[in-house]
Amino acid sequence: ATGYTGLELIRILTAHPDVTVAFATARSQAGQPLSNVHPAAPPITLADPEQVDLSGADVLFLCLPHGAAQQLARAGLDAGCVVIDLSADHRLHDPADYQKWYGGEHAHPDQLGAAVYGLTEHRREAVRGARLIGNPGCYPTSILLALGPLLAAGLLDGATIIADSKSGTSGAGRTAAVAQLFAEVNENLRPYSVGHVHRHVAEIEQEISALSKGTTPRGIVFSPHLIPVTRGIISTLYLPVTDHSQYETIATLLHQAYAAEPFVRVLPDGQTATLAHVVHTNRCAISVHPVPERDTLIVISAIDNLVKGAAGQAVQNMNVRFGLPETAGLQ
Amino acid sequence: ATGYTGLELIRILTAHPDVTVAFATARSQAGQPLSNVHPAAPPITLADPEQVDLSGADVLFLCLPHGAAQQLARAGLDAGCVVIDLSADHRLHDPADYQKWYGGEHAHPDQLGAAVYGLTEHRREAVRGARLIGNPGCYPTSILLALGPLLAAGLLDGATIIADSKSGTSGAGRTAAVAQLFAEVNENLRPYSVGHVHRHVAEIEQEISALSKGTTPRGIVFSPHLIPVTRGIISTLYLPVTDHSQYETIATLLHQAYAAEPFVRVLPDGQTATLAHVVHTNRCAISVHPVPERDTLIVISAIDNLVKGAAGQAVQNMNVRFGLPETAGLQ
Amino acid sequence: ATGYTGLELIRILTAHPDVTVAFATARSQAGQPLSNVHPAAPPITLADPEQVDLSGADVLFLCLPHGAAQQLARAGLDAGCVVIDLSADHRLHDPADYQKWYGGEHAHPDQLGAAVYGLTEHRREAVRGARLIGNPGCYPTSILLALGPLLAAGLLDGATIIADSKSGTSGAGRTAAVAQLFAEVNENLRPYSVGHVHRHVAEIEQEISALSKGTTPRGIVFSPHLIPVTRGIISTLYLPVTDHSQYETIATLLHQAYAAEPFVRVLPDGQTATLAHVVHTNRCAISVHPVPERDTLIVISAIDNLVKGAAGQAVQNMNVRFGLPETAGLQ
Amino acid sequence: ATGYTGLELIRILTAHPDVTVAFATARSQAGQPLSNVHPAAPPITLADPEQVDLSGADVLFLCLPHGAAQQLARAGLDAGCVVIDLSADHRLHDPADYQKWYGGEHAHPDQLGAAVYGLTEHRREAVRGARLIGNPGCYPTSILLALGPLLAAGLLDGATIIADSKSGTSGAGRTAAVAQLFAEVNENLRPYSVGHVHRHVAEIEQEISALSKGTTPRGIVFSPHLIPVTRGIISTLYLPVTDHSQYETIATLLHQAYAAEPFVRVLPDGQTATLAHVVHTNRCAISVHPVPERDTLIVISAIDNLVKGAAGQAVQNMNVRFGLPETAGLQ
Repeated sequence: ATGYTGLELIRILTAHPDVTVAFATARSQAGQPLSNVHPAAPPITLADPEQVDLSGADVLFLCLPHGAAQQLARAGLDAGCVVIDLSADHRLHDPADYQKWYGGEHAHPDQLGAAVYGLTEHRREAVRGARLIGNPGCYPTSILLALGPLLAAGLLDGATIIADSKSGTSGAGRTAAVAQLFAEVNENLRPYSVGHVHRHVAEIEQEISALSKGTTPRGIVFSPHLIPVTRGIISTLYLPVTDHSQYETIATLLHQAYAAEPFVRVLPDGQTATLAHVVHTNRCAISVHPVPERDTLIVISAIDNLVKGAAGQAVQNMNVRFGLPETAGLQ
Repeated sequence: ATGYTGLELIRILTAHPDVTVAFATARSQAGQPLSNVHPAAPPITLADPEQVDLSGADVLFLCLPHGAAQQLARAGLDAGCVVIDLSADHRLHDPADYQKWYGGEHAHPDQLGAAVYGLTEHRREAVRGARLIGNPGCYPTSILLALGPLLAAGLLDGATIIADSKSGTSGAGRTAAVAQLFAEVNENLRPYSVGHVHRHVAEIEQEISALSKGTTPRGIVFSPHLIPVTRGIISTLYLPVTDHSQYETIATLLHQAYAAEPFVRVLPDGQTATLAHVVHTNRCAISVHPVPERDTLIVISAIDNLVKGAAGQAVQNMNVRFGLPETAGLQ
Repeated sequence: ATGYTGLELIRILTAHPDVTVAFATARSQAGQPLSNVHPAAPPITLADPEQVDLSGADVLFLCLPHGAAQQLARAGLDAGCVVIDLSADHRLHDPADYQKWYGGEHAHPDQLGAAVYGLTEHRREAVRGARLIGNPGCYPTSILLALGPLLAAGLLDGATIIADSKSGTSGAGRTAAVAQLFAEVNENLRPYSVGHVHRHVAEIEQEISALSKGTTPRGIVFSPHLIPVTRGIISTLYLPVTDHSQYETIATLLHQAYAAEPFVRVLPDGQTATLAHVVHTNRCAISVHPVPERDTLIVISAIDNLVKGAAGQAVQNMNVRFGLPETAGLQ
Repeated sequence: ATGYTGLELIRILTAHPDVTVAFATARSQAGQPLSNVHPAAPPITLADPEQVDLSGADVLFLCLPHGAAQQLARAGLDAGCVVIDLSADHRLHDPADYQKWYGGEHAHPDQLGAAVYGLTEHRREAVRGARLIGNPGCYPTSILLALGPLLAAGLLDGATIIADSKSGTSGAGRTAAVAQLFAEVNENLRPYSVGHVHRHVAEIEQEISALSKGTTPRGIVFSPHLIPVTRGIISTLYLPVTDHSQYETIATLLHQAYAAEPFVRVLPDGQTATLAHVVHTNRCAISVHPVPERDTLIVISAIDNLVKGAAGQAVQNMNVRFGLPETAGLQ
């Protein structure tokens, strides 16, 4: 609970009308109040992860580095909890993919197959029946929410999708690292893992395949950039669209797909999604920008990486799973 | 001289070993010291633009809004000055282009044809003989330095080039505007004029044509984003390259093209250009990132928008024009 | 409703369980949705201030520049509203003081005498019966919450209190001004109106007198500094305390005075109040630092200028005035 | 040479007209180019500190944590170098003071007595003859430059001087620490070590005594605050001045004392020192603000902590020591 995602989750859960927080754990700070770590944290005392009683919990949230969540997910499932894993350990379905991208065998490969990829708007029915939910990564959430309705309509057949993403620093976690010092990030802009090498590529392309109807894009080129803000992701997507009549189709598709969604807002023509639309909310803002002069469609998608890109979506999944109002605790 | 570009220019010129600043003008603050406007400015008193004597100057720099530079450039030329215009008024060569993109007739269309587009590394010979230099825009400088050697080699035939650019706020100038307030920019990221609508598109495509040998790209998709830093531009360029053998060719081309250039640094394989490479310098840093999995080449280009993207390049052009060492005053 | 304070107020009120927003006004943007101005604003259409019907409102909040609130407060009172004025127009009780510090006669000097100074923790009883509440300034809130219990105990007799305050830029409002541009504020720190000249001095010294029991401090030296954050104020107070036994007395006094307060948190010994304790909350964090080596006591006080320093405290006052739970809508 | 101070020093020295950098060391990165650590660093290869030949160097700069500089200073002196120590190891003259404030015995207490405290403007003559220079701390430089002329005139007899200082994060060094992460510092303001506990207090009070003529102030109350900027320190000093005729005396004293100094600028009446006056320069800006209403004089002092507060002043001391123009390499 001491990382940025864990803290955000605790904040949301303690204010959630239908939730009681049974415990929050932290190995090295066990016994201390969470406010020792985060001055504005709710009044909760950290527990030793070895000492907590899972049997009394309905739902277990895991905010751990990848690799560390596999065993605890097992324990939670064995204790009868619904497990919502915010790490990358249960997002990929194929154990070979996991090994390729994360560099080690998964301890419980059966869990990979059983887990539901919890991008709520796309998998609501599956989430309702899930025992184990792999909560999506922050970049994939921003990209897949923009692409979903287009993929479902088969509009990106064979396309190479370019995703230029910009993220605040909280996505890198609360770990001491010279590269994340204020004096290194401030007044700087740093592309990293550009091309086809960031681990989120695996998750994005898995879901692109899953969401595509009939025809499938070729895949994604993905360039994340670190920007000097604490929170938020903007993904600028470049899609080849040669049939200009599709520009209007796509805008309409996006508007219709999300018209009833409480957390996705497709902006009116002429407006542009920015971080200011979404920071400190569970919302995704999407804007559509046809470029007929160059046979391209630009779609811009904005989320708060700690909320819709992590803790907020985890709570949204919990709400759906337990039949609570989907927006409970998230407005 | 009171805008961000003007101030940067004055700073460079006052420290330049071969330059004496004859005057610096500002209409509304005439008579005041420049340090009233910028606390760290050199000790210089602002002059009324109507009162200055052009006849004693060898070179006249114009840092004005577009539209306002046309007449003053005329006056400078008539007085025998070399004119280096940092506005957009002498970048486009075709009067029809100027009217289309800037919304008004050019007062001296003959100057458009006569002006040299001063991207120094590409136009050194022309600059040497120029009487009127249209100093390039900040975004075009970052993009064209990365593309130049590829265009000259005819490697982007028919391609649609995607340029996703991120700029600090000094590019918007020192003008009171709610959208540029600290509380609006801070913790925000704002795409704007995305697609094929920003005025710099005209200048970029003009130069893409001019630099291309034999074959020409289709054109550019250009998305600028405002980021919360004061200075610096990163342009992330996505180029379709299906022949994978060209990845190495292109890297080699870039290294060779700029090996002897004092202000362009093509980074070694595995390194990524960031703002930290270039801020407060006249340098451009370029890194090359093949994405063979998706038939794409990414090139990242970084400059300081106020230096290589404006005042520094203007001085570099002056140095070339007057036979001074090209790096004088710029290191 | 389009300024930073107005927006914050609308956000709090639309989520408040016991409030219906009847209207929100803006002269120049009347008819537009508030989200045109602030992308994340609640869905509300701005009304013309001349067209709204005050008779249906129980409470009228005014977020206007000083000077402009006097007439509207009168209109609200005449229509039977409780008026909570977030401007400076009803904070000073003496018309001569108002004229001296704000440079013009007050249009309704009787309102000055009638208004309650709404620093809730100090004036809860008066607020309960108030028809007109002058909501405190942001700096005064941070300073007076720290001083209140000490003044009530008569511990600062004759003292000159030094208040070194640091504020984020939202305190300057959402008005186009070169001095508030991102490129002017970023990487800068700017003291302003230092000494005894900032208008908040009047309000602070008025309340110091009012809160003092028997003995009174000499007055305040007040130096505000603009820092590159959007929200938050830290006031570092230096108090001469020669009797070292009082260090413990004062800490105890502060802890006791605020033990039952939901929005004031006096930190345990050894901790230091920071902006991270309070930003985006209605809380004030206070820490106490004895300096016996130099006969001085330092008290540090932190608030969010837009919440406890403006909109949050206004809602807290509304809650008290209408017998609602004091924390309603504020947690 | 890999810390922020070391890098700044290398930058200044490589551009200095009278200096050749013989070597720059870094234990863990020996053999690598400095640009691996700092993208914009000059082209220099890091050496192993055990392998360098001191005998060829005229001057040895030490940018090490306190404790680590004592032995290397000895080695430099033995090799005949002038040693300029930017650590805290040779600032205090009394070994007992060193032990009290730095928590360990000094390995070469004789060096403490021999070292010159290198606040150049105050110790120019001593620096000319020094073999070992203890380069002042950043906070002390900002505070002592403002106080020096007042102390020399005996104007602060018995006074308790309050120094409220605000510093950018580069002062904390380039060391991985959670508290210095971007997401912890950004949008935050953090007082620390307030009162009489920061180690710089020892150095400030030592120099206050040394600079005082006849009468001496009681001492200092010192509160540093961490602000979200990379560079710069503002110290706001509160001085009790009951004789109002002294306000003008003090302003005159400051103007006269620094009239001929190239790096100290006392601002005209009515102007206020800000970080923008000094960042990226070796200058100190000082402004004077009488508060007769409260018998107080405020003096505000601004420096760049990495330049005048560290590397710049070290080079200024070198210039003085070796008879070079004092401003060489610093303009």
